[in-house]
Amino acid sequence: MPKAPTVDDVARVAGVSRQTVSNVVNSPAIVREATRERVERAIAELGYRPHAAARQLRTRRSSTIGVHLDPYAGGISGVVLDRFVHALTERATDRGMRLLVFAARTPGQEIERMADLLDGGEVDAVVITGTFHGDPRTGWLSARGVPFVAFGRPWGVDDVADPAHLWVDVDGAAGTRAATTHALQTAGRDVAFLGWPEGSGTGDDRERGWREAMADAGATGIRISAENNVGAARAAVGDALSAAPAVSAIVAASDALAIGAQLAAGAVGYADLPVYGFDNTPAAEALGISSVEQLPERVAAGVLELLMGPTGNVVAPREAAAGTAHVLVEPQLIVRGHSGAG
Amino acid sequence: MPKAPTVDDVARVAGVSRQTVSNVVNSPAIVREATRERVERAIAELGYRPHAAARQLRTRRSSTIGVHLDPYAGGISGVVLDRFVHALTERATDRGMRLLVFAARTPGQEIERMADLLDGGEVDAVVITGTFHGDPRTGWLSARGVPFVAFGRPWGVDDVADPAHLWVDVDGAAGTRAATTHALQTAGRDVAFLGWPEGSGTGDDRERGWREAMADAGATGIRISAENNVGAARAAVGDALSAAPAVSAIVAASDALAIGAQLAAGAVGYADLPVYGFDNTPAAEALGISSVEQLPERVAAGVLELLMGPTGNVVAPREAAAGTAHVLVEPQLIVRGHSGAG
Repeated sequence: MPKAPTVDDVARVAGVSRQTVSNVVNSPAIVREATRERVERAIAELGYRPHAAARQLRTRRSSTIGVHLDPYAGGISGVVLDRFVHALTERATDRGMRLLVFAARTPGQEIERMADLLDGGEVDAVVITGTFHGDPRTGWLSARGVPFVAFGRPWGVDDVADPAHLWVDVDGAAGTRAATTHALQTAGRDVAFLGWPEGSGTGDDRERGWREAMADAGATGIRISAENNVGAARAAVGDALSAAPAVSAIVAASDALAIGAQLAAGAVGYADLPVYGFDNTPAAEALGISSVEQLPERVAAGVLELLMGPTGNVVAPREAAAGTAHVLVEPQLIVRGHSGAG
Repeated sequence: MPKAPTVDDVARVAGVSRQTVSNVVNSPAIVREATRERVERAIAELGYRPHAAARQLRTRRSSTIGVHLDPYAGGISGVVLDRFVHALTERATDRGMRLLVFAARTPGQEIERMADLLDGGEVDAVVITGTFHGDPRTGWLSARGVPFVAFGRPWGVDDVADPAHLWVDVDGAAGTRAATTHALQTAGRDVAFLGWPEGSGTGDDRERGWREAMADAGATGIRISAENNVGAARAAVGDALSAAPAVSAIVAASDALAIGAQLAAGAVGYADLPVYGFDNTPAAEALGISSVEQLPERVAAGVLELLMGPTGNVVAPREAAAGTAHVLVEPQLIVRGHSGAG
C-alpha cells in the first residue's frame, strides 16, 4: 500500500512545526490565518488525513453508532427491518457518522456486545430495535447513561406523556384504521380482522385500529386468529369463510397473514375478496395485495434526529428528553387492484 | 456515564508502573510471570479495557471490515444480499471483528467512501458485492493493495485459473442445472427457460445451466425473455403459452420471474405447471414455488475465510493469492409441492 502522507510531511511542505499542523487540525482558531492557510494548502496538496484513531482519542468521540442486526429468520416481513438499516446507513453516512453492525442471539448477549463496544470507545451511541414488554436493554442503557434511541416504543408505560426513553415507532393503529375505513367505503360493512393470538404489543395495536374504525362506522366484524405464517392463515381463513361467508373484506396484521387469506378466499370461490396486509413487502406487491407501508426510511430519519439533535452532535439522554422525546410515524395505505392470484 | 477504569487505576491496584501495565496488554511475553499475573488480576477486578482507539494506534489494525449496503430498491430478490450481510455480521462478530456499513449511490462514490475509511484507519479490509464487467472498484482496490474479497466473480477474465482478485460466488449454472434436471425427470421433456434479456453475467450463467442439462438429455425447449418483474414475466409467459402450449415446466432466472410465470399459467388454465425460481425468497416460499437457494450464509463464511485466512488475521492480497483464491458455493434446489396460487 503506498505510504499515506504523515503530519511530518505536512509540516515540511508548509514550513511549520508538527505542533502547528496539529493545531490547525484540532484547534484552528488558535492559529494565525496566514499560517493556517499555508498548512491547509499543504494538507490538500498531499492528501493528508488525520488518522481516525488519533482523532478519536483526542475528542473521545468515535462518531460511530452501533446497531444490532437480528439473525435472518426468513419470513415475509423481515424486509422492514432491513430497509430500516439501509436507510439508517444512508442517512448516517450523509451526516458523516459511521454505523457499526453487530450480531447477538439474545437480549442478554446484545447487552454484552454493547458493553464491549461502549467500553472500548468504539461507539458513541446505539440504536435498538424491536422493543418488548420488560425489555432488559432499555433499563441497562438508561442506567449507564448511554445515548440511545429505540425503534419501538417503551411498552407498558405512558410512552407519550412520560416516555422511559427516546423512541420512534410506526403508528400501527393508524395503518389498520386506514385499511378498515377503505374497506368499509368500497367493499361493505362486514370487515373481518385477521390477527395473531392476542397479547403482543404490536398485534394489539394493529387490532385496535380496526376496532376503532368499525366502532366509528357502527359496524361489527369477526376476528380471526392465526400464527404469523401463510399456511396457518390460509387454514384459519378457510374455516372462518366456510362458517361465516358474509365477509366483505379482511384486514390483516401482516402480509404473511394477508397472503394466506387471499389463497384461502381463492380456494373457496371468493377470489375477488379484498384483502389488506401490513408491511408492504415485495411479496404483497407481487400478488397485487393492498398493504400498509411502514415507511422505514422515515423511522430512520426520526432516529437520527432524536439521536443527534439539531446541532448534529450525539445528544446526551437528559438534554434530548427536554425536547421531543419520540417520533410516531404515520404509515401509508397502498391500495392495489385486487388482481387475484389465480 | 460512570468513569471507566484507566491504566493508572490498574497500575495503582497492581503496584506497578503504567509502562508495566501497557507491556502486559501489548507485549505480555516481556513481563515476568508473577508481575503479569498481578496485573491481569487487577485488570479483571477493575473491569479495565484498553481503549480501542489507543489499541488501534499501536497495532495499526482497526479489526474492522467495511461493507457497502446497496440502497433498498424494492423487489423480490434483495433479500439475498441482506441475508449475506446478516451472516457476515454474525461470523465477523464471532471472530472478534467489527463490521462497518456505509452507503453510496454509485461505484465512484463507493470508491470515495472506501478511500475515506482506509485513509482514516477505520477499516483494515473491505468486502464488495455485485461485481460487474469493467467494475472500477476492483482495479482501484488492487492498485492500492487493500485486502478485499468480492461477492461476485471478476467477470471477463479467467476467474478460476487466473483470478484478478479473491472472490466468492454462487454457481448459478449448477442451480438451474439442478432445477432443469428435476423438471426433466418429473414433468416432461419440454422445459422452457424464462430469463432476462441476454448480456448480464449472472443471467447468462443461469441460462447456461438449463442449456447444458437440456443438451445432456437430448431435449430442446423454448427461451422466454422478460425484464425482472412479476408483471413483465406474467405477460411474456402468457404470450408464450398461448403460442406454444406444449411446455412441461418453466425454469426461471429469478423468483420474480417465476411468480409471474405461475400467475400466467394459472390464468390460462395450467395452474399445475411446475415452475422453478431462483433465490428461494419468502415470496416463493409463501406461494409454494420450488426455487434455488443461494446459501448466502456459506458465501459469508467463504468471504471471511478468504479474507482472514487460517490464522485469523486479515491477509494481504499477495499472501492470500498463494492459497485458495476463490470459493464457488453450490446452491441447493428446494422442491415444493406446487399448491398453485388460486
